[in-house]
Amino acid sequence: MKSGIVDVTFGRDVTVIEPANLYGCEIGADCFIGPFVEIQKGAKIGANTRVQSHSFICELVTIGTHCFIGHGVMFINDRFDAGGPAFEDKDAWLPTVLGDHVSVGSNATLLPVKICDHAVIGAGAVVAGDILEPGIYAGNPAKLLRPLDP
Amino acid sequence: MKSGIVDVTFGRDVTVIEPANLYGCEIGADCFIGPFVEIQKGAKIGANTRVQSHSFICELVTIGTHCFIGHGVMFINDRFDAGGPAFEDKDAWLPTVLGDHVSVGSNATLLPVKICDHAVIGAGAVVAGDILEPGIYAGNPAKLLRPLDP
Amino acid sequence: MKSGIVDVTFGRDVTVIEPANLYGCEIGADCFIGPFVEIQKGAKIGANTRVQSHSFICELVTIGTHCFIGHGVMFINDRFDAGGPAFEDKDAWLPTVLGDHVSVGSNATLLPVKICDHAVIGAGAVVAGDILEPGIYAGNPAKLLRPLDP
Repeated sequence: MKSGIVDVTFGRDVTVIEPANLYGCEIGADCFIGPFVEIQKGAKIGANTRVQSHSFICELVTIGTHCFIGHGVMFINDRFDAGGPAFEDKDAWLPTVLGDHVSVGSNATLLPVKICDHAVIGAGAVVAGDILEPGIYAGNPAKLLRPLDP
Repeated sequence: MKSGIVDVTFGRDVTVIEPANLYGCEIGADCFIGPFVEIQKGAKIGANTRVQSHSFICELVTIGTHCFIGHGVMFINDRFDAGGPAFEDKDAWLPTVLGDHVSVGSNATLLPVKICDHAVIGAGAVVAGDILEPGIYAGNPAKLLRPLDP
Repeated sequence: MKSGIVDVTFGRDVTVIEPANLYGCEIGADCFIGPFVEIQKGAKIGANTRVQSHSFICELVTIGTHCFIGHGVMFINDRFDAGGPAFEDKDAWLPTVLGDHVSVGSNATLLPVKICDHAVIGAGAVVAGDILEPGIYAGNPAKLLRPLDP
């Protein structure tokens, strides 16, 4: 099978650099999607958000407006809570919700979490828990480095 | 040069999402290989295993059956033991062997190691040593979080 | 838009595995560039350097000769110092300079830093500060594991 752009709902003036594998997702106006990106069905990306090269956005992810998703960022919807992948048992999958103006550094990894508006995730961080106040978070697992006044 | 699928031995009912760069490797029956994946010559992947998008599987890697390799997972066969890459001195390369039912989280990195059946590697983990009992391992370097009863 | 090779200055005998997204950069003689790689405008790569699959090299990065950039390595030119991406305010971007014979392990992430000749960065490391003496560095953030006698 070939990668491609299938059943995607685009806002106006979206740029996608191919090859990309986008299917069944919603991408808001004025978004930029870099090369070598996969976005799965049901994912929603708000207007004016950038998704840089090599990133993967899975089912059950919702991203707000004016967000920046760096290069090589991986979202996850399965915590392997039963000791391995839930596979087609989608009741075991969990959602991720990013607010607006969220920035995620390159090579960061996001377990299923909530992240509030104006949070900044450092490069290479592994985010395993919710982030509920604006600030800069980094490390594995990610911890607050310093709060931000939004 | 172009990526492609060259000299690959496939079992029946394998799905590959292209573009992919697969050469000289063996991929068992009912495997799924996501987009933007590279698998090098000599690598062997057992039946019913999934390799998700953006992953890289190098020479000297053997993966069992019913494994799950997440997105952006990187395998390594050279520990830079001499203070840098061994390049074409393949005597200095080391094998990696994964048992059956092994799950590797997204953005994990695996140095040359042995991993037993039913081990779970967390997202973003860096695995630098052998994993010999079933359990959930995470962090950089990866450590046992909790044992699993297989 | 399509990925491709646009306005790139190549030395002799360079190998590029496509698909790749290379634009406005300089790549020295005898380099190897693996598949699913992006290299942005203004980046310079010295002769005899290998850039493996899935890596991203951004504007303001200079890499010396005989370097090895592993798989899934992400360079960064923006520290989010103002609490988020600088976007088009390029005065806020910072350069990265790698010397010669530098080796960077797979899935490593490099903030804007200087790295001296003969340094070795471990797989999965996050390099947040300058590296000024030859040695092996690993972890998040990367720390000296042991010095090397170059």
